[in-house]
Amino acid sequence: MIDLNCDLGESYGAFKVGNDHEVLKYISSANIACGYHAGDHNVMFETVRLAKNHGVRIGAHPGFPDLAGFGRREMKCTPREIYHFIVYQIGALAAVCKACDTELSHVKPHGALYNMAAKDVEIAAAIAQAVADFDSSLVLYGLAGSELVRAGREKGLLTAEEVFADRTYQPDGTLTPRSDKNSMIHDPALAISRAIRMVEEGCVEDVNGMDMVIKADTICVHGDEPQALEFVGRLRNAFAKEKISIRKSWRNE
Amino acid sequence: MIDLNCDLGESYGAFKVGNDHEVLKYISSANIACGYHAGDHNVMFETVRLAKNHGVRIGAHPGFPDLAGFGRREMKCTPREIYHFIVYQIGALAAVCKACDTELSHVKPHGALYNMAAKDVEIAAAIAQAVADFDSSLVLYGLAGSELVRAGREKGLLTAEEVFADRTYQPDGTLTPRSDKNSMIHDPALAISRAIRMVEEGCVEDVNGMDMVIKADTICVHGDEPQALEFVGRLRNAFAKEKISIRKSWRNE
Amino acid sequence: MIDLNCDLGESYGAFKVGNDHEVLKYISSANIACGYHAGDHNVMFETVRLAKNHGVRIGAHPGFPDLAGFGRREMKCTPREIYHFIVYQIGALAAVCKACDTELSHVKPHGALYNMAAKDVEIAAAIAQAVADFDSSLVLYGLAGSELVRAGREKGLLTAEEVFADRTYQPDGTLTPRSDKNSMIHDPALAISRAIRMVEEGCVEDVNGMDMVIKADTICVHGDEPQALEFVGRLRNAFAKEKISIRKSWRNE
Amino acid sequence: MIDLNCDLGESYGAFKVGNDHEVLKYISSANIACGYHAGDHNVMFETVRLAKNHGVRIGAHPGFPDLAGFGRREMKCTPREIYHFIVYQIGALAAVCKACDTELSHVKPHGALYNMAAKDVEIAAAIAQAVADFDSSLVLYGLAGSELVRAGREKGLLTAEEVFADRTYQPDGTLTPRSDKNSMIHDPALAISRAIRMVEEGCVEDVNGMDMVIKADTICVHGDEPQALEFVGRLRNAFAKEKISIRKSWRNE
Repeated sequence: MIDLNCDLGESYGAFKVGNDHEVLKYISSANIACGYHAGDHNVMFETVRLAKNHGVRIGAHPGFPDLAGFGRREMKCTPREIYHFIVYQIGALAAVCKACDTELSHVKPHGALYNMAAKDVEIAAAIAQAVADFDSSLVLYGLAGSELVRAGREKGLLTAEEVFADRTYQPDGTLTPRSDKNSMIHDPALAISRAIRMVEEGCVEDVNGMDMVIKADTICVHGDEPQALEFVGRLRNAFAKEKISIRKSWRNE
Repeated sequence: MIDLNCDLGESYGAFKVGNDHEVLKYISSANIACGYHAGDHNVMFETVRLAKNHGVRIGAHPGFPDLAGFGRREMKCTPREIYHFIVYQIGALAAVCKACDTELSHVKPHGALYNMAAKDVEIAAAIAQAVADFDSSLVLYGLAGSELVRAGREKGLLTAEEVFADRTYQPDGTLTPRSDKNSMIHDPALAISRAIRMVEEGCVEDVNGMDMVIKADTICVHGDEPQALEFVGRLRNAFAKEKISIRKSWRNE
Repeated sequence: MIDLNCDLGESYGAFKVGNDHEVLKYISSANIACGYHAGDHNVMFETVRLAKNHGVRIGAHPGFPDLAGFGRREMKCTPREIYHFIVYQIGALAAVCKACDTELSHVKPHGALYNMAAKDVEIAAAIAQAVADFDSSLVLYGLAGSELVRAGREKGLLTAEEVFADRTYQPDGTLTPRSDKNSMIHDPALAISRAIRMVEEGCVEDVNGMDMVIKADTICVHGDEPQALEFVGRLRNAFAKEKISIRKSWRNE
Repeated sequence: MIDLNCDLGESYGAFKVGNDHEVLKYISSANIACGYHAGDHNVMFETVRLAKNHGVRIGAHPGFPDLAGFGRREMKCTPREIYHFIVYQIGALAAVCKACDTELSHVKPHGALYNMAAKDVEIAAAIAQAVADFDSSLVLYGLAGSELVRAGREKGLLTAEEVFADRTYQPDGTLTPRSDKNSMIHDPALAISRAIRMVEEGCVEDVNGMDMVIKADTICVHGDEPQALEFVGRLRNAFAKEKISIRKSWRNE
């Protein structure tokens, strides 16, 4: 069983990003930007309604308060401040859900915050605490094997370990930085077979060709370009053939 | 019975505004800025904790997305967009309250939005609908006799009609614009006697010297300057002498 | 002789807008956003360098401080504040030009500010004064026959009267609002013949079918979509056939 | 001969900071915020006019694009982006000066950027290059003995080495971080005698009690609190007694 998640609602005012309508046909969870790095209040409403109509689970995708940097730049914020703005952003999106008569399901930090939370114990703890204090029934998404997943478990949250089909892994389980040559897997067939292996065997080859253990609760996909969309379609077909079903709920299964 | 409310939490980052610690001793309701015109996420947490510790009711004080203008400039936003950002801002502050183990009690629009909602039926309806859709148990504050109060009632909300002790009224019940010479009442004794009359008799003299009917559920006070603070103290003493009690709750009374 | 201008540099951080590389092949003047409604400092440098490499004149395209609204929403700003932020934005872009070893040529207000300056005498005067005070050799672009052009002339500025090939005109010379059905001319051939007539005869048919006088110093084109680009190419070809030459300079001709 | 500089124009919209009117009586150079970390376009005009009226030299005080953090938080920006936004900010303030019929004299980076530029060779070079490319006659202010001063000299700029009377120094010439207990000198008499020694002898005692060489071209003072203002007055009197004159110009003296 696997969850397919995608970052959505990343437009801002007249600035249009992504292809949300299309990718929603393929995914089971949408991570929606909350106004700090992308996604203004109008975009949030539109995206929540769209996800609801597609029967896709809705998650908050909070990021650094950095619109110009799209939340991709590291900012020196105290764990306390991170706790504050995670609560703020989740609360804002949860309110949009409430007004649209639907519910928030999960939280996945965005961009630089996601990467920092994977390694930094204090930031991971701040984020997990924020989620727990707002609503302890929310599922916390984090890089598989990361500090964020650990922190979530410690706070008693349900966690979803996230894997990437199109990225390579270092021996310590971290993603190879995008700046490295071999960070991306460009061959769709290889990416798909790796994804299947991660789900079925809990295992993936690292950059040195050694097998490493990895837990794949959810897989991150993209939908902003035609090629990306096509890949998601192929991935879903491959999962179907392997009888890997798409997760219908994080509970009672 | 009367409620004393004050706008709080209007600092932003290193920019410090007001004297929140002091005025909280005198008031029964705090309207807390939600990050759009003032009050970042750090300030919101600090102010919610402070209000909670003083046993003061907490309200959201949403405004236009205009930090540079402090929400005091009219912006041409559609009622739909206003609905969206009211939900966003209330949700963010409600989340802060939840994380601080306390509750949101009311909503009062800020600045230009407050003034526009007093007269514009569509904006009033958008705001009232946003409050009702987020949490229909919240009390909606608006200018006494305004469209906003009317809209709130239509949506089934409890409303609080707000009066001003230090401002003069036009015959139609609107406040005399600040740009007019006679907009302010500078004599504290006169302001206090007018406040008492509004509460006890439901009546106030307009700029032409004619009595007009006014409902005074809550009175707006300021605490940013020593004189303002002193006035609030005198007002409370005057209410005490008149046996006008400070409202303990908006319900079951 | 005619100038072809286009709004460029409207990306912001990770938010990509337009097709600047392509349209620069067809135009003689680029209006570059200055960071308030679009176009951050990185985008400004990139766009100035691009325009310089294409030998296209560079203009400042200042707008309201409203990134979320892309400068398309009316804001209630005093003429004094408008004067201030026009100077700020022109200065910022002029500095980018200086650092790129090129020069600023003109100023064209953006969006809601452009429309307001066409009709409002005080706003028009504030903008013209800002341009004159910063550099009186800059050319001021405004809607043909507008208050802005008039104000520019009064301040002693060279002005460029702007016309639109794909829009219809009201009898008073204003553009038919986009919200009206007949605001746009969708037939490229008709748009081109109107453009030619405006340039050659100084004349255009209004919505009522009556001829009105119009001065066409510069024509506004778009390049953000394939169709728009194609139209610009056809327009240039049509001008070439009519021996209407593209303006090489605003001076000594 | 010494220059007394102070950071001014740090208000933003309704957020009022500092006591600019008062401190301008005592200083010879004002560093004016440029809209990124503080100081909107209205404040910039007001402050430039005020400085001009007091005959005080005007400098640009560019900072990180971080209003919420007041430019005091480190941001991971490339040297290229720093170059871009330094040009942008200097250009904007230079334009304000031009419109006010006065001139820009110097540039001093603000907050976290100032501290990073003191140590980071690439950031220092980016800032110095930005200043040189915009106007090579501008004086570059930096921490005495810092990489920024070195970079400025390499680019052929006139530099001003800045010292602090109320801060202690590490043996390597850096300021003791504010988080350390002994970072501040609270005794005004001691601060004044250290300032005089730095100017007259080019020498100051470090935290270990050892003398170190220091060049004091300009001294940073504050004016935001009554005590700070009083200290500046005493410092000027002490300089006068010692026949240390206040620098009238950075040139031909």
